[in-house]
Amino acid sequence: MASMETFIAKSPRSHLRLPGTRRTDFAGAAARFRRVSRCPAGVRCGLIKPDGGKLVELVATVGPEREALRKEAAMAGGLPRIKLSRIDLQWVHVLSEGWASPLRGFMREAEFLQTLHFNCLRMPDGSVVNMSVPIVLALDDEQKRVVEGRDRVVLADVNNNPIAVLKDIEIFKHNKEERIARTWGTTAPGLPYVEETITNAGNWLIGGDLEVIEPVKYNDGLDKYRLSPAELREEFTKRNADAVFAFQLRNPVHNGHALLMTDTRKRLLEMGYKNPILLLHPLGGYTKADDVPLSWRMKQHEKVLEEGVLDPDTTVVAIFPSPMHYAGPTEVQWHAKSRINAGANFYIVGRDPAGMAHPLEKRDLYDADHGKKVLSMAPGLERLNILPFKVAAYDKTQGKMAFFDHSRPQDFLFISGTKMRNLAKNRENPPDGFMCPGGWKVLVEYYDSVASLEGTKIREPVPA
Amino acid sequence: MASMETFIAKSPRSHLRLPGTRRTDFAGAAARFRRVSRCPAGVRCGLIKPDGGKLVELVATVGPEREALRKEAAMAGGLPRIKLSRIDLQWVHVLSEGWASPLRGFMREAEFLQTLHFNCLRMPDGSVVNMSVPIVLALDDEQKRVVEGRDRVVLADVNNNPIAVLKDIEIFKHNKEERIARTWGTTAPGLPYVEETITNAGNWLIGGDLEVIEPVKYNDGLDKYRLSPAELREEFTKRNADAVFAFQLRNPVHNGHALLMTDTRKRLLEMGYKNPILLLHPLGGYTKADDVPLSWRMKQHEKVLEEGVLDPDTTVVAIFPSPMHYAGPTEVQWHAKSRINAGANFYIVGRDPAGMAHPLEKRDLYDADHGKKVLSMAPGLERLNILPFKVAAYDKTQGKMAFFDHSRPQDFLFISGTKMRNLAKNRENPPDGFMCPGGWKVLVEYYDSVASLEGTKIREPVPA
Repeated sequence: MASMETFIAKSPRSHLRLPGTRRTDFAGAAARFRRVSRCPAGVRCGLIKPDGGKLVELVATVGPEREALRKEAAMAGGLPRIKLSRIDLQWVHVLSEGWASPLRGFMREAEFLQTLHFNCLRMPDGSVVNMSVPIVLALDDEQKRVVEGRDRVVLADVNNNPIAVLKDIEIFKHNKEERIARTWGTTAPGLPYVEETITNAGNWLIGGDLEVIEPVKYNDGLDKYRLSPAELREEFTKRNADAVFAFQLRNPVHNGHALLMTDTRKRLLEMGYKNPILLLHPLGGYTKADDVPLSWRMKQHEKVLEEGVLDPDTTVVAIFPSPMHYAGPTEVQWHAKSRINAGANFYIVGRDPAGMAHPLEKRDLYDADHGKKVLSMAPGLERLNILPFKVAAYDKTQGKMAFFDHSRPQDFLFISGTKMRNLAKNRENPPDGFMCPGGWKVLVEYYDSVASLEGTKIREPVPA
Repeated sequence: MASMETFIAKSPRSHLRLPGTRRTDFAGAAARFRRVSRCPAGVRCGLIKPDGGKLVELVATVGPEREALRKEAAMAGGLPRIKLSRIDLQWVHVLSEGWASPLRGFMREAEFLQTLHFNCLRMPDGSVVNMSVPIVLALDDEQKRVVEGRDRVVLADVNNNPIAVLKDIEIFKHNKEERIARTWGTTAPGLPYVEETITNAGNWLIGGDLEVIEPVKYNDGLDKYRLSPAELREEFTKRNADAVFAFQLRNPVHNGHALLMTDTRKRLLEMGYKNPILLLHPLGGYTKADDVPLSWRMKQHEKVLEEGVLDPDTTVVAIFPSPMHYAGPTEVQWHAKSRINAGANFYIVGRDPAGMAHPLEKRDLYDADHGKKVLSMAPGLERLNILPFKVAAYDKTQGKMAFFDHSRPQDFLFISGTKMRNLAKNRENPPDGFMCPGGWKVLVEYYDSVASLEGTKIREPVPA
């Protein structure tokens, strides 16, 4: 979320009258649930099906299959080798576990073009699945020369260890300007993902079918949180979930978020679900330098559960391995679609999701409402119930975070991300009830560590 | 078409393997025809249905309806009035005749967002129709202030004559940068339509339902060619067409084009159609300054029919009233979709359709093959049979335009657009058989008129 503020679940705009736009309120969600997921009486509904009907898993099976692949990849004088960047490897991870089902590897041109132009892919049966961000691998001219004419290549990590084999490859032009314009809706210099991965990338893209030698691990103490869609589905099934609601975040959790999640569960119960489970799903891949790093966010989230702000029995905390694009309405579709593959049938969408400030102009890059609107109309996401944020703020009369009450605005205090960061940096406390004390302490420690690293120079801005 | 050259109908690329991509060869078209349009034995097939099932027509019926609308629009001290630019009026024309069916007026935000992000609109029954270019009307701050809070506005022409009423209006932000980036895939300065209509436009857009007082006319001697989709459908029905193949162009017709069209008809006959009719459909709205103007193009097309290069019995020449975006793969979808509404079920797609040179860099703005590929995968165009160009060139052994034969390249002469223009400017003749003599004479006259207007300064470049 771009800011700490949550926003009101407006009733559907009467002028959002375009045929086929979907309601985004609970009643609508309930209606859709009845329509889409009705189960025979007495039979428990299964989890929502992955895109394409079957979860894609691209890691070789332990045993002869894995060993054969490992041997093929390691053979001296064998296949050409492409070295993956840290972010390329995150995409291999994403693809290997089926977050992007039905994609079976880095995009070929037909997939790339459909993603850029339509944000979706057409399946053989004529149905469409959503796919809004290009998942591609760039090659420079020299790499292209080496690879050209071959049928498959080895993908290796930064230390040149073989990670995967990309088969039945296709090489096509990487028109960076067009990719950037169609994905971000701007070509202004300063887009973090663009600067990090596209600007200096090669002028070619290579697509193909991916076969990964073994599960991708980071050995950073957080792998236990990196549950694959298959593992998450297993966990939800074990917990007898009959609804899964996903909350994507890349920021610390305050009590306003927690209120929203608790309230969502309550309302799902009221709709007749027996056991809605929350997937609290921080993004774990690349984030821009001024975001709070994953390790600190995970410490903060751990405290939120330890201190009972969220109920561990009905909450699964896991890391979503995708890198962050900061591509607003385009990216929020990816954030939603990938969670379908992990079993979520409800998705909570924030104000200005995946948004950021315009890199050159004094305004937000995206209209704060577009994420919610685009998500509600996106092809291939019809099965997902979209739940918009409600505005939570600090209620001075209750001394806690509460949904904003328009009849008594004077009682509410909005604590912006900037304000929160400044408090944490200055080791001041927010009002009681804004965030659990342990979680707050983690934040203060994080900013202390930044300050001590940088002397007195505090990095700005650090969105919360 | 961006160049005079046509290109080879490649067999479907084996690596264009994405599920759901469609074949673009004749065999594929035939297969689709059998699948989509099979008629009961002995019953003649009707024309392809318009998008949304029913052709939208927004011109008030002659009589009380028209008079009431005229009165409402003219009432002194009545509705606020928005003055339309020449290009705005062309869009009113397009909308009023249903080229953009099922759109019923300038886009509201939900339609605008779907167009930008998905190139298509979802219908109430869950189906989608293609809609790739925004059809929008801009307001500046002052106009917004005047219009806000009202339910409807009058649209007037440049002389302030009322043209239409826009009802049930919605005003929303005009994020120009995002619109340009997502439509053109670049934000480089120098895009003709952008400079002409967007750069200096207001920061707001107004959408609503359009009611047009009377048919839009230009009184330029060419209105007889401006057949509406309903009129074209009537003409095709009168001619007993069982297939209609559309050829979009904004350039003079040479014998290579003619060969392609004649050959297409021959192949449709071989497929079993009894009476395929060609819709030769020059674009008549805004074009950039260095394109050959509509009036000259129409003179040239008239000669092509007069001199028997195309058969008048099986050809309908009409003007497509849309302005030109020069937005490549995005725009070609609009060019195809609008022809479905006019009754065409086959669409001939050229190399680099709606393409142009990059305004800043020394390259084409779009990959020459992307138009064809994007068109073949576009949501909402599944019903349309896409026919790619075949390369035609001047066969020196036959002294005429012929399909390029790879086994004897030395026999063929490629006459580029630049070469053709230079010949016409210098009053030289192309090889016999390149273009019918009367058509060539029109071109020479056009360049003469430009030269005499500008003295010795010939405008460059003038794509043919």
